Amino acid sequence: MPLPAKMDLAEGALAIDATFGIAPGFDSRLAPAVSRFQARVWHQTGIFPSPAGPAPTLAIACAPCTASPVLGEDESYTLDVTSSGASLKSATVSGALHGLETFLQLIEPGPSGFRAPAVHIADQPRFAWRGLMLDCSRHFLPVPVVERNLDAMAAVKLNVFHWHLSDDQGFRAESKLFPRLQEFGSDGLFYTQDQMREVVSYAAARGIRVVPEFDMPGHTLSWLVGYPELAAGKGPFEIGRHFGVFDPVLDPAREATYTFLDGFIGEMAALFPDPYFHIGGDEVNGKAWKESKDVQAFAQEHGLKDTLALQTYFNQRVLKILQKHGKTMVGWDEILGPDLPKDAVIQSWRGADSLAAAASKGYRGILSAGYYLDHLRTAAYHYSVDPLGGPAAGLTPEEAAHILGGEACMWTELADAETVDSRVWPRAAAVAERFWSPRDINNPDSMYARLEAVSHRLEWTGVTFRSNYAEMLGRLAGARPVGPLRVLVDASEARGLGTGRRAHETFTPLNRFVDAARPESESVRHLELLARKIAASPSADPAGIATLRAVFSVWAANDVRFQTLAEGNALLEEVKQLSKDLSAAGAMGIQILDYWGSNKPAPSEWCAAQSRELARMKRPDAEVLLAAVRPVKILLEGLVKR
Amino acid sequence: MPLPAKMDLAEGALAIDATFGIAPGFDSRLAPAVSRFQARVWHQTGIFPSPAGPAPTLAIACAPCTASPVLGEDESYTLDVTSSGASLKSATVSGALHGLETFLQLIEPGPSGFRAPAVHIADQPRFAWRGLMLDCSRHFLPVPVVERNLDAMAAVKLNVFHWHLSDDQGFRAESKLFPRLQEFGSDGLFYTQDQMREVVSYAAARGIRVVPEFDMPGHTLSWLVGYPELAAGKGPFEIGRHFGVFDPVLDPAREATYTFLDGFIGEMAALFPDPYFHIGGDEVNGKAWKESKDVQAFAQEHGLKDTLALQTYFNQRVLKILQKHGKTMVGWDEILGPDLPKDAVIQSWRGADSLAAAASKGYRGILSAGYYLDHLRTAAYHYSVDPLGGPAAGLTPEEAAHILGGEACMWTELADAETVDSRVWPRAAAVAERFWSPRDINNPDSMYARLEAVSHRLEWTGVTFRSNYAEMLGRLAGARPVGPLRVLVDASEARGLGTGRRAHETFTPLNRFVDAARPESESVRHLELLARKIAASPSADPAGIATLRAVFSVWAANDVRFQTLAEGNALLEEVKQLSKDLSAAGAMGIQILDYWGSNKPAPSEWCAAQSRELARMKRPDAEVLLAAVRPVKILLEGLVKR
Repeated sequence: MPLPAKMDLAEGALAIDATFGIAPGFDSRLAPAVSRFQARVWHQTGIFPSPAGPAPTLAIACAPCTASPVLGEDESYTLDVTSSGASLKSATVSGALHGLETFLQLIEPGPSGFRAPAVHIADQPRFAWRGLMLDCSRHFLPVPVVERNLDAMAAVKLNVFHWHLSDDQGFRAESKLFPRLQEFGSDGLFYTQDQMREVVSYAAARGIRVVPEFDMPGHTLSWLVGYPELAAGKGPFEIGRHFGVFDPVLDPAREATYTFLDGFIGEMAALFPDPYFHIGGDEVNGKAWKESKDVQAFAQEHGLKDTLALQTYFNQRVLKILQKHGKTMVGWDEILGPDLPKDAVIQSWRGADSLAAAASKGYRGILSAGYYLDHLRTAAYHYSVDPLGGPAAGLTPEEAAHILGGEACMWTELADAETVDSRVWPRAAAVAERFWSPRDINNPDSMYARLEAVSHRLEWTGVTFRSNYAEMLGRLAGARPVGPLRVLVDASEARGLGTGRRAHETFTPLNRFVDAARPESESVRHLELLARKIAASPSADPAGIATLRAVFSVWAANDVRFQTLAEGNALLEEVKQLSKDLSAAGAMGIQILDYWGSNKPAPSEWCAAQSRELARMKRPDAEVLLAAVRPVKILLEGLVKR
Repeated sequence: MPLPAKMDLAEGALAIDATFGIAPGFDSRLAPAVSRFQARVWHQTGIFPSPAGPAPTLAIACAPCTASPVLGEDESYTLDVTSSGASLKSATVSGALHGLETFLQLIEPGPSGFRAPAVHIADQPRFAWRGLMLDCSRHFLPVPVVERNLDAMAAVKLNVFHWHLSDDQGFRAESKLFPRLQEFGSDGLFYTQDQMREVVSYAAARGIRVVPEFDMPGHTLSWLVGYPELAAGKGPFEIGRHFGVFDPVLDPAREATYTFLDGFIGEMAALFPDPYFHIGGDEVNGKAWKESKDVQAFAQEHGLKDTLALQTYFNQRVLKILQKHGKTMVGWDEILGPDLPKDAVIQSWRGADSLAAAASKGYRGILSAGYYLDHLRTAAYHYSVDPLGGPAAGLTPEEAAHILGGEACMWTELADAETVDSRVWPRAAAVAERFWSPRDINNPDSMYARLEAVSHRLEWTGVTFRSNYAEMLGRLAGARPVGPLRVLVDASEARGLGTGRRAHETFTPLNRFVDAARPESESVRHLELLARKIAASPSADPAGIATLRAVFSVWAANDVRFQTLAEGNALLEEVKQLSKDLSAAGAMGIQILDYWGSNKPAPSEWCAAQSRELARMKRPDAEVLLAAVRPVKILLEGLVKR
């Protein structure tokens, strides 16, 4: 995952044992990637290469091996595996990196040990811009967290890291010209310039471009703490502690604002070698501008009739600064004003309409609407969104060619260094496949099967979305046995921002049930598949029925133990009803299976009552959803139809 | 855990919230420990200290705050917690460190958030030498693995890291005087001198002494690869690739051997500041000495009548070298020869008899027999072994005072960097309690309850014995859903060295079912507790019966799914029968519960047949044991007695 553009399986397999390795003679720029590859083979197989040195079994031919990563470069590769060896060919470093990742995904346990199946793969991406945005402002994400996410990105062939470095809640980049930005705006949590250079080079080594974002003129409260003179309106200002749209924004009317931005952007442009530079540009409510006499006078003088016109003026000025420093502007879809130059890139977040509109006007665009990972929607939902779907389907081929790809976005109001991985992964892998693989690869069941497989492997890149689960459950359980809690969390799903009653502030602890729960329950998805099979043909799968019955029994028996665990525990108080519902769902599932197994028809009144009860249980509480309801519902509906 | 020597719970609790912190004014040498403490509080609670700064709620008074760690220092502390604050008092840095660890263990979720219960604790260790030995030769353990184990040791108040740095299979310490030791003897896997200094200082900061071991004159094959002239007998030699006792050993008859050792020990003595230095001294089979004319001539000349006499001579010479470099000798119990000076310390591994014998002769001793973690015995077994139990029980108080404590030992023939944590933890915590807590703290059920609680917390120190479990299962399952494998591994237990049919060599991959399985199944232990309760009084716990029945149903339904998963998977081939047995055990458990629930007595023939079947299943295969048998057996035996 992502599925290659073309893949033909053949007979036989290449054994991956202690003699396996990469043939010498590869391009020296690939040496670090080859080391990482070998470490990953070791992780995936547990086989340590024998000290005698590997036999040459994977040969890499990279020619001319153009340096990477560059937008629009040739990322294609071919990979041939036979029982006697493997061969990887590419024209660029990025192509070779992608081929190595594909090879790692081929390794599997076979009848006589680990192996890679014989295969011919000719692969290239559908879109050139395949990104992940991490919001490092709302919650700071330390360098190791960023880096492990870069490794996971590379594993699924994402090639743009969009680094959201400033927002109302924190200014995370060290400026030497304007040190009060980070000194007053970050609570001490920021990246030094050395760290930013390190991240850029870490990403580049993995074929990933880094596009920094400094959101302006809105979302700039953290700038104003140290530099209140940049604001339209009077300070003093404080770092934003809650979330949403704040009134204070930059002053577009003072020349000093642009002098400051010229210095600051120049400084940052030197740190980030990629030609694209993101200036945000979203969510300016205009309040501060309307309230400022100076700004209003300026607007009148320049014939800028409203907030949008003022923001367009501001953007024009910033654009010139970017051009001066050799950068191309990227911005959220609000920047699409009347006089925006044609080389700007529009990132659509408010809807796919703006993407199509931009493309039809000749602007290049990337889609993020539908890829907001923090909404905690299903992988299938994100997978169904296509950059060329919806309104973009009506574009001419020339217009459609302006759509460069898309970006999954992870806003961190409700995620921190500990939980962010579990909010990004594995679902971002489904988005990665949407950006890479041919458009007709779109079966969600097939996607989920591969997502689960890649999910295990992603953990070996260093992200902790699976491994920190036990720790988070342990924290909730305190000194008590964690078992019944695990049963409940496994059967539940976390919901995203805006769905709960939690007071959202920066320092609100992310230590609750919802924070441990995953956006999608893998185990419940298995039960749904089983339930569908059984509802379609109940007599065909007695083992499946036994499995469902066993799991329902575990659920039914769980609440008594859970209530003991939760007693006097403030963190678990809010899910006591959820636990009762899980046990009720289990008991209901057993009854339904009893009806399935007997010749007695289920009374329709009983079925209706159960259906109402399931509908009640389904309503989320404490920001979590009882996923367990779904397989029970499938069985009940099958029973009604019988 | 370990349970304090004296602990009186009071009414009320101290709230651990965002305002909680350590009062300023503590001894500056504690600053790094205080930082670590704060990070751990954050991990344990998910509460980030508010930027306004903490209110002073834990005050630390350390006076005179003697530098640590030193054998026999005052490690005591008192800790008082009330609803308005907490106070920690100690005379040494080590005492303060212990008190901070105790405080961390007190933090728990309560009815209105995290809290520490009000308590008065006056604590000190029962033994001064509480060690863990890690064998870093058989499998090399990189510095981060060593360091995370040091953190876990500190969490349970172990205070000696016995670093087994050389053995037949690898010489792991960099020597600048004799670089061929590591160059020829380590496959490139060794600690640089800087790294060893770092580990020593990392340990010291956590109150842990480091005692290096260079095993001699036996277990020295890795030395002889680069320096064959040290051997009694002719080279060339190769690094040991299999395990056991090798014939080649150092030559005790040549003066050059002692010149070499003088240089080498002098170099190492400077790296390791602790006054104790371990020279191994175990398992010399004497073969090479008997076959060497020179050695035999030397023996005759000096009146050394046998291997033991030769080894005693060698030890005497080494002892003088150690004394010259200011070190006190520690050795395995074989060094206890006739002329051993009284300040040597004997580490008993062959049995507790040697410990008692040494103590009665006036030697100081530490017990390791009964604490070999790599044997993968139960925590309860290790917990039951007491340094002053068995033959030592007959010692006079003066003799008994020579017994300094003990060491848990982890030999790594069958463990590597990935799996070693799960072989050491959490069982080493039970041994730690044996060394620290009063002797009458010895109830295994109580120990297990606390072990489970501490086990969650240990993971927060950095050891990965819980978090890497999912990864190892993922590797075994390949791209297939891991669920049925998890059910089987959860119900199984790994057995230790010498119990299996695996060819044991250094590069044998540790990627099998047994390597993922834990030495003790926590979930099966819970089922055993339930089964015992039900067997004693079946009508009293319908919820318990429902839980057992649910788990038995999961087991019974698991094999069909497991066999699908295991098909064509070489790694899972060997546990296919185990899976069948698990399902059979589940089905049997359900039948037994049916008999319990009905008024029909179980036919005695049926019971006898089930009992035989359980006995068959219990026999370990593929180095794993079907732990699931135990709760079923308890119920069956209860049924028979009914």
